[in-house]
Amino acid sequence: MQNIALLGAGFIGHVHAKSLATNPRVEFTYVYDTDESRARELAAAYGASFAPLEEILASDRVGAVLIATSTNTHAELIEAAAQAGKAVFCEKPIDLSYEVAERAATTAREAGVPVMIDFCRRFDPAYASLKKAVEKGEIGDIELIQMSTRGPSLPPISYLASSGGQMRDQNIYFFDLLCWITGLEPVSVYAEGSALVDPEVAEVGDVDTSIAILRMSNGALCQIDAQRRIAYGYDERIEISGTKEMMEAGRQQTGWTKRYGQGSVTSEGLDAGWFERIEHTFAPALDEFVGALEEGREPSAGLADGLRAQRIADAATESLQTGLPVTISYDA
Amino acid sequence: MQNIALLGAGFIGHVHAKSLATNPRVEFTYVYDTDESRARELAAAYGASFAPLEEILASDRVGAVLIATSTNTHAELIEAAAQAGKAVFCEKPIDLSYEVAERAATTAREAGVPVMIDFCRRFDPAYASLKKAVEKGEIGDIELIQMSTRGPSLPPISYLASSGGQMRDQNIYFFDLLCWITGLEPVSVYAEGSALVDPEVAEVGDVDTSIAILRMSNGALCQIDAQRRIAYGYDERIEISGTKEMMEAGRQQTGWTKRYGQGSVTSEGLDAGWFERIEHTFAPALDEFVGALEEGREPSAGLADGLRAQRIADAATESLQTGLPVTISYDA
Amino acid sequence: MQNIALLGAGFIGHVHAKSLATNPRVEFTYVYDTDESRARELAAAYGASFAPLEEILASDRVGAVLIATSTNTHAELIEAAAQAGKAVFCEKPIDLSYEVAERAATTAREAGVPVMIDFCRRFDPAYASLKKAVEKGEIGDIELIQMSTRGPSLPPISYLASSGGQMRDQNIYFFDLLCWITGLEPVSVYAEGSALVDPEVAEVGDVDTSIAILRMSNGALCQIDAQRRIAYGYDERIEISGTKEMMEAGRQQTGWTKRYGQGSVTSEGLDAGWFERIEHTFAPALDEFVGALEEGREPSAGLADGLRAQRIADAATESLQTGLPVTISYDA
Amino acid sequence: MQNIALLGAGFIGHVHAKSLATNPRVEFTYVYDTDESRARELAAAYGASFAPLEEILASDRVGAVLIATSTNTHAELIEAAAQAGKAVFCEKPIDLSYEVAERAATTAREAGVPVMIDFCRRFDPAYASLKKAVEKGEIGDIELIQMSTRGPSLPPISYLASSGGQMRDQNIYFFDLLCWITGLEPVSVYAEGSALVDPEVAEVGDVDTSIAILRMSNGALCQIDAQRRIAYGYDERIEISGTKEMMEAGRQQTGWTKRYGQGSVTSEGLDAGWFERIEHTFAPALDEFVGALEEGREPSAGLADGLRAQRIADAATESLQTGLPVTISYDA
Repeated sequence: MQNIALLGAGFIGHVHAKSLATNPRVEFTYVYDTDESRARELAAAYGASFAPLEEILASDRVGAVLIATSTNTHAELIEAAAQAGKAVFCEKPIDLSYEVAERAATTAREAGVPVMIDFCRRFDPAYASLKKAVEKGEIGDIELIQMSTRGPSLPPISYLASSGGQMRDQNIYFFDLLCWITGLEPVSVYAEGSALVDPEVAEVGDVDTSIAILRMSNGALCQIDAQRRIAYGYDERIEISGTKEMMEAGRQQTGWTKRYGQGSVTSEGLDAGWFERIEHTFAPALDEFVGALEEGREPSAGLADGLRAQRIADAATESLQTGLPVTISYDA
Repeated sequence: MQNIALLGAGFIGHVHAKSLATNPRVEFTYVYDTDESRARELAAAYGASFAPLEEILASDRVGAVLIATSTNTHAELIEAAAQAGKAVFCEKPIDLSYEVAERAATTAREAGVPVMIDFCRRFDPAYASLKKAVEKGEIGDIELIQMSTRGPSLPPISYLASSGGQMRDQNIYFFDLLCWITGLEPVSVYAEGSALVDPEVAEVGDVDTSIAILRMSNGALCQIDAQRRIAYGYDERIEISGTKEMMEAGRQQTGWTKRYGQGSVTSEGLDAGWFERIEHTFAPALDEFVGALEEGREPSAGLADGLRAQRIADAATESLQTGLPVTISYDA
Repeated sequence: MQNIALLGAGFIGHVHAKSLATNPRVEFTYVYDTDESRARELAAAYGASFAPLEEILASDRVGAVLIATSTNTHAELIEAAAQAGKAVFCEKPIDLSYEVAERAATTAREAGVPVMIDFCRRFDPAYASLKKAVEKGEIGDIELIQMSTRGPSLPPISYLASSGGQMRDQNIYFFDLLCWITGLEPVSVYAEGSALVDPEVAEVGDVDTSIAILRMSNGALCQIDAQRRIAYGYDERIEISGTKEMMEAGRQQTGWTKRYGQGSVTSEGLDAGWFERIEHTFAPALDEFVGALEEGREPSAGLADGLRAQRIADAATESLQTGLPVTISYDA
Repeated sequence: MQNIALLGAGFIGHVHAKSLATNPRVEFTYVYDTDESRARELAAAYGASFAPLEEILASDRVGAVLIATSTNTHAELIEAAAQAGKAVFCEKPIDLSYEVAERAATTAREAGVPVMIDFCRRFDPAYASLKKAVEKGEIGDIELIQMSTRGPSLPPISYLASSGGQMRDQNIYFFDLLCWITGLEPVSVYAEGSALVDPEVAEVGDVDTSIAILRMSNGALCQIDAQRRIAYGYDERIEISGTKEMMEAGRQQTGWTKRYGQGSVTSEGLDAGWFERIEHTFAPALDEFVGALEEGREPSAGLADGLRAQRIADAATESLQTGLPVTISYDA
């Protein structure tokens, strides 16, 4: 049994609390949040208790912390937990600043604690099937990759203003998937964007609609289109065209009914939002972390993966800003 | 080159005229119809000429006739053509009366002329794929067959009154497909029907909605549902479940566009009517007849096939009328 | 909070234990089974405790029992629970004998306790959508219904020998769905079957492949095909053709990936078995029972529904045995 | 009746000959080709006759010419035909050199003859549906467009060497569709490409795999991926995401059969090549030309459309070569 404390009792904290409570290999002990009352409430719902951060980090009982606080606190919490010898499962991203993220990663590496970044889409069965097919060589040499990430509504402008921009906030998960599925890394990126939904998006220096082209180390090309607000729910999709076959993790409709009328057939729509689409991935992601702790091995998505995705996002952001293609360097 | 004359210049005569005119192995010479003016008009459109029936049958030039007249004249035209030594391509069915049909078949057999019944659905690529998969053993032993035949609108009551009933008029083509695809014959049939669209359907002794169960010689079971008027265009569908796989010749939508809206995905509807669905089968059916004549072999759907389908339709009709299952006998 | 005890700690008992333990409105107290050790084990896994049947029925704390024992004990447990004043949630069917089932129903009715039969497929989103569309009049007048129920493997012959036959053991859930979705009842049934998978199936008086035709009270016709062992996993499907549209609760593939190769596109298969297909329906079914108890109303699938489905199954079984259509009477 | 002569008796000439011969409003008179014997052969197959170019252009009988010769002769034939007062239906592109193409366009404009460029994909029902939905405002404001054009095999290197490159040879038809469907024009383009199939592709200065991003006049973004050789037949696809809905002209499978096996469902593959995919568009494209001549109006795809597509292709080619985004200017 892994004894895990939860840091952060907001929306995503609630999601993780449920996974912690129902995972048979986890003892879910404490919840911490700067808002003590909501931490107590969440703890109570799952038979855990509230504890202050210092107490959690000092507790011999607690073996690991799950960081589900706001992004700007991730790095310092990783460092504090690492220095306390706790294993860490951390929501993405590590930090909006690559330098801050890297410093946290260095601290954790030096402390020798296992850290897993919650790239939970890796645990989506469709994306996992893509990776498996690539690894088995069933797709052949990869030549073209197409990704779409499209959300149902524009986040508040205030959120966008501090989000780091579409590449760091929305595309980053697909930058990770791209590397993870293909086993390749991008060597350069060109991105173009527009603020079509609301002119205020441009005023805070962001875009809401964009396309990025990434050139992979083997010469393959990848395109990622991103929309903050589409008219038809939530949509993400990946296809990989190789020398042996093309495989698609297609649009997922919410069910299998069909209505046949005069001149048209109507089937079920896409998910309402990102959470409905990936809700099922949180529990297995946590389970991978627990398994890694039990078996004393590295968890599948570590700090290096988190840093790599940020490097790509930073380069894509630079391209958006300069209007020029940008080479991606992975050196320290 | 096969020199072929067309008998009948109605709707289906026009369909065949086009096939005759565009088949490179056919010399399309004459058109006959009791309505001479429509025969002349059709002939002119394709560079053929009108000729009286007797002249066509007496002509040394004409090698075959294509019978596309009204059903009640098929049998006597087959006989006349056979006695004149002409090969025959005849619209289905041979005759509504099994005895009359059988007599015509006997005459043709004695005259030794090749006769093909236009079971053109056999030339639909989807149904042909089903047959091929069965023949190759890919489906395994057949255990269950499901067929749907559903039309967009009720034919006129006057037509129904002389049509022989839903089994002989609508289901018969599927009775043929059933035997042809599976290589099996039904040994008994039970059919149940309702007149749901219009009470006058019942008044003329017919049904517009029915389900038939057929027991095949190997113990497999087949269901055929038939509707004269559905709300969603024209629909036919076949699936065959065997010990190795299940194969479906599915509903055919008219195109591949999809519209993604809030909560639903709309794709294209089914065909408007039977003609849109099977139009592409007429030319290859004629081509098979021409090929058989050229190669001196039996055409693929002969008089025996036509008679067999009628036996099944007769038994199904008897079941509808008696409310009891009926054994099907294939002896003379 | 409803205090519910579980009777039966076999496979389906485990399924219900999970629902009981995770339903926030349920206090899951006791587990009983004739095999005390497996009852204790199951109870321990969910923080409940073992108790003998008499103790459960005598306990003031327990408000309801969930009967998940073997079918032949359902009726007497319903009676005992009813006489002890406990509400009952009972696995289907009530009893293989209509008379025994009816006696239990009468006892429960007289005791005035709410009883829900676990027709959990009613809580499948696709089937619930069908019902909703029918109720809203979107399908129009129902004219034709098609149902398929096809399993992946033949149950043991010993199981079949005491199962009551395919109609009572497999089709019965679809007889309930048919009435529930359409709001209509069948007035007669004709069924035909074959033992194609194993000759021993015939030796115990059963069939493994069957088709039933049911005539509904409004003249609509329904066909239900049933296979015990298909080659392609587990398959169930319903379509309803009405005067306004046709709606299909279609085959459910296990995911949304597609692989494009030379000449074919491969997508994901169907569920492995019935449990994978309907696992998600158990929790909402229990929740409906709990809601009915809280609100003091009848649960949605009661004893009368259970008895009706059995009447239809009995008539279908009689038709299989006599080879004749059978009228269904719903009078006592 | 429009009297039309065919110039060019190669593969595409044969395709057009069939359309000319079967169009009821066309009198198909002459065929010309530098290879007289193949011109005579083609003419004979359709009841036309061979004539030298000068004779065709001098003939009072001939009202229009269909130019289906090799690309490098298009411009001079347009000019010759225009000067002879003949209407022109010309295979795409006008010329690989924008200047040459523009000169031919000017000559034709000055001669006042109607000219139609064979952008036949506009007559594909799926693409026409996209345009109609855009025009009706059903898609709303366009924000993102995704196009794929992927072929089954690498053309000969010798062909590529003189083709003008992937943008001018393969993407150009999609540049036209982009403008035609959306009613928008691109203002800039960035393209990136690789030679993955064969290093010789790079040696002749071309790419076989590419992605282009186009920024449209309203700020919408378009991506076009192009592959010369994919593993799964021939594939083209367009989707348009707008403020009201997203519409997709999806991948077209060759039929509607499905095979259900253990763990997978196999359906039919894509077309074998471009010709199978768009064969049905040639006849309606010609028919539009004939209709325009009869009605004395401009045909739907004229010289300006051809020049515009070439401007875009030239800019995309420049981007491929410089590695930088390129502004597209439509001024003379």
